[in-house]
Amino acid sequence: MISPSARAITRELAAYAAHSRFDALPGRVRLEAHRTFLNWMGCALGGSHEPSVEMAVAAAAEGGSAPQASIIGHPMRTDVAGAAFVNCMSSSALAFDDTHLATVTHPTGPVAAALFALCETRKVAGDEFVNALALGIEVECRLSNVLLLPPAKANLGLYVTGITGPIGAAAAVGRLLKLDEDRMRWAIGLAAAQAAGFRATHSSMAAWFVPAHAARSGLFAATLAAKGFTCSDNTLEAPNGFVAMFSSGAALDRGVEGLGERFELLANAYKPYPCGIVIHPLIDACLEIASQLQPGDIPASVALRVHPLTLTLTDRPKPATPLEAQISLHHWAAACIVQGEAGLAQQTQACIDDPGVVSLRARVSAVADPALQRDEAVADVTLECGRVLSAHAAHARGSIDRPMTDGELNAKFRSQARMALADAACERLLGLCRNVSALADVGKEIAAAWTT
Amino acid sequence: MISPSARAITRELAAYAAHSRFDALPGRVRLEAHRTFLNWMGCALGGSHEPSVEMAVAAAAEGGSAPQASIIGHPMRTDVAGAAFVNCMSSSALAFDDTHLATVTHPTGPVAAALFALCETRKVAGDEFVNALALGIEVECRLSNVLLLPPAKANLGLYVTGITGPIGAAAAVGRLLKLDEDRMRWAIGLAAAQAAGFRATHSSMAAWFVPAHAARSGLFAATLAAKGFTCSDNTLEAPNGFVAMFSSGAALDRGVEGLGERFELLANAYKPYPCGIVIHPLIDACLEIASQLQPGDIPASVALRVHPLTLTLTDRPKPATPLEAQISLHHWAAACIVQGEAGLAQQTQACIDDPGVVSLRARVSAVADPALQRDEAVADVTLECGRVLSAHAAHARGSIDRPMTDGELNAKFRSQARMALADAACERLLGLCRNVSALADVGKEIAAAWTT
Repeated sequence: MISPSARAITRELAAYAAHSRFDALPGRVRLEAHRTFLNWMGCALGGSHEPSVEMAVAAAAEGGSAPQASIIGHPMRTDVAGAAFVNCMSSSALAFDDTHLATVTHPTGPVAAALFALCETRKVAGDEFVNALALGIEVECRLSNVLLLPPAKANLGLYVTGITGPIGAAAAVGRLLKLDEDRMRWAIGLAAAQAAGFRATHSSMAAWFVPAHAARSGLFAATLAAKGFTCSDNTLEAPNGFVAMFSSGAALDRGVEGLGERFELLANAYKPYPCGIVIHPLIDACLEIASQLQPGDIPASVALRVHPLTLTLTDRPKPATPLEAQISLHHWAAACIVQGEAGLAQQTQACIDDPGVVSLRARVSAVADPALQRDEAVADVTLECGRVLSAHAAHARGSIDRPMTDGELNAKFRSQARMALADAACERLLGLCRNVSALADVGKEIAAAWTT
Repeated sequence: MISPSARAITRELAAYAAHSRFDALPGRVRLEAHRTFLNWMGCALGGSHEPSVEMAVAAAAEGGSAPQASIIGHPMRTDVAGAAFVNCMSSSALAFDDTHLATVTHPTGPVAAALFALCETRKVAGDEFVNALALGIEVECRLSNVLLLPPAKANLGLYVTGITGPIGAAAAVGRLLKLDEDRMRWAIGLAAAQAAGFRATHSSMAAWFVPAHAARSGLFAATLAAKGFTCSDNTLEAPNGFVAMFSSGAALDRGVEGLGERFELLANAYKPYPCGIVIHPLIDACLEIASQLQPGDIPASVALRVHPLTLTLTDRPKPATPLEAQISLHHWAAACIVQGEAGLAQQTQACIDDPGVVSLRARVSAVADPALQRDEAVADVTLECGRVLSAHAAHARGSIDRPMTDGELNAKFRSQARMALADAACERLLGLCRNVSALADVGKEIAAAWTT
């Protein structure tokens, strides 16, 4: 490990977190906090009956827990830590959650799941909730920036949501628990001491386990710190501390410069397609080509040019399961061309095994082009007749330059919420999420939406 | 991250764990497993009323948990995960636990705490318990060897008990749950995905938090894997996996060569003194000098020669709290010379603030001598009259070359158990621990020792 330079970012972030207020948030940030909460709740409902989640629910039931908080999408309650864990897992399980594009952090899951579980054990006003959510995401994404952006040497092996997620969740929960600066530093430190996760777990259920663990770890860190349980005061920047462990050459300033003025939440995006975010631009390009196909056109092969990171993370020509397909660029290119859509149906085993998709998937090739942006891709589809159809996606749908509209987010919410709730409950819940900062008791009012 | 060579150690370790049997353990290994369990139980009782543990107990009570398992040293029970967490924390809190000397892993805490908590939820025979304990420690210490011993570049920043502890605990619990090889691999992987901890948390309560987190994480990993929750099959050795994340240049072979033939448990030691293990040799030397002091001799200064690691880890001239004193070589040198002892009394605030200790502590100096072994130290004490008393500890008491006897371990057990239990209960418990492999129902019979 190295010893990073000595800026006291643990102290600075804790001070910011301990004193943050809803009133001080710019309107755009408040709005985005509402949008990401809505997106999160929809994803938690959409993923709530995935096999991995059902197993986690069964484990929670076995753990001897009291019914303190909702397991979203299920008629049961569990202890607050178990609820944070399971609800974050649900929200990740369809790979449909939000993404901080610069670092490929999925920031909202750990923070929102920890906060929402806590809100069911005590009265929390909506404005406090939204403030805590925004600040948790801010702390989390800033630390992701420290670890991964220049001058730090990028380490693609980190599963960064598991690394910085606990800290964001701890700061957020700590704010609701009204921790003073000392305790907030300890909460941040105890969360950092649970930071965990690497990419080798992708393409198994463990891919959803890591963010879920982050949610629970952050909640626990803040709960313990509230009791006076101490940690070092400089856990993040200390020699042999958090930044030293997980990065090389990092600039600590990235963690704190412009705090309260620049907000990373505004660099967070929502996925229109349920798969790895780096696949999205090529989906746009392939969908455009699919819309141009005429009856009788038979696609023979697909040639893609993508950002190098896309190839590094999603070069999986033969996915066998939905978990593998979620991070296979070959699958999504073929599925888009053959089926003309890129929704939850294209993530299923039926689509993975569809003969037409299987056949074209084997003839998808991709090359990395460093000249392309991360949200950019080019597709060339050669038809059996020899004609070539081309499309260029300059900014992926859902990216910062082409954000999902409120209407698109509502539609995405409904498509997932209806997998677990009746239509009337969906609409009630959508209204509550859109308006969460005005609620008097977040946990009670939202839980009522699905229990009544 | 790097990509280590491709030996399938996840598979090999899982196969070993899934098929391990008490009958196949050499007699010396069985014996040592009993000794380490006795030592662990004593430490768990000794630390059970430390402030950090009391806070964790309070947090457990708040977590809405069912009374599934004992909180050792307390009249209450909590859920199995909370019990694993708190009991491991207790056993670490006085820095009196066991040490795998080559890697400074404290292996028994995470494994024993996870196992014992599980044993209170179902009938587990003593021989199964001892086998699981031995195998968990084996897996844990072997992975510590992989990460830290040559050809791996030593990384002193890792808090290695938190890194490999979850995996040892998962393998052990997985054995009791009778996981097949597939599920054992996933248990190991899910535990690796929770591996966490760095040294910057030392000298705060978080130093006990990290092993406690390891115990609970391992238990949870095995519990989830038992339900079919998957992980990658090669989590340890995969590119961007566990070994790649936590080490550089590691030899995977260290993890598996001689499995079932050579046992790391035989390289595990018990502390005679409640402080960082690297301080022990200089304590021996200072105690020897203290025993030579005559009435009227006034120590003026202490000059130490120690192994370089001792200075790296415990160079703390002005400890203010028991937590800091536990890892201050200056404190223990001064306390030994002034008070002639190195027990729990020398870890207290009273000793830290004792004017005689404070005064001499300021005149303790230490130099690193690469020619010394890790369990070796030389002390020179200069008296006010100018005379110099010297002592050389060639092998620290409690080290592998000079192990604690059964009698010494019994005495250590009693000194700690009496802090929480009546004498009769101590003796009953001592007998049960010494004989644990013969018990028919480990959890029930041991818990009866303190509840009746």
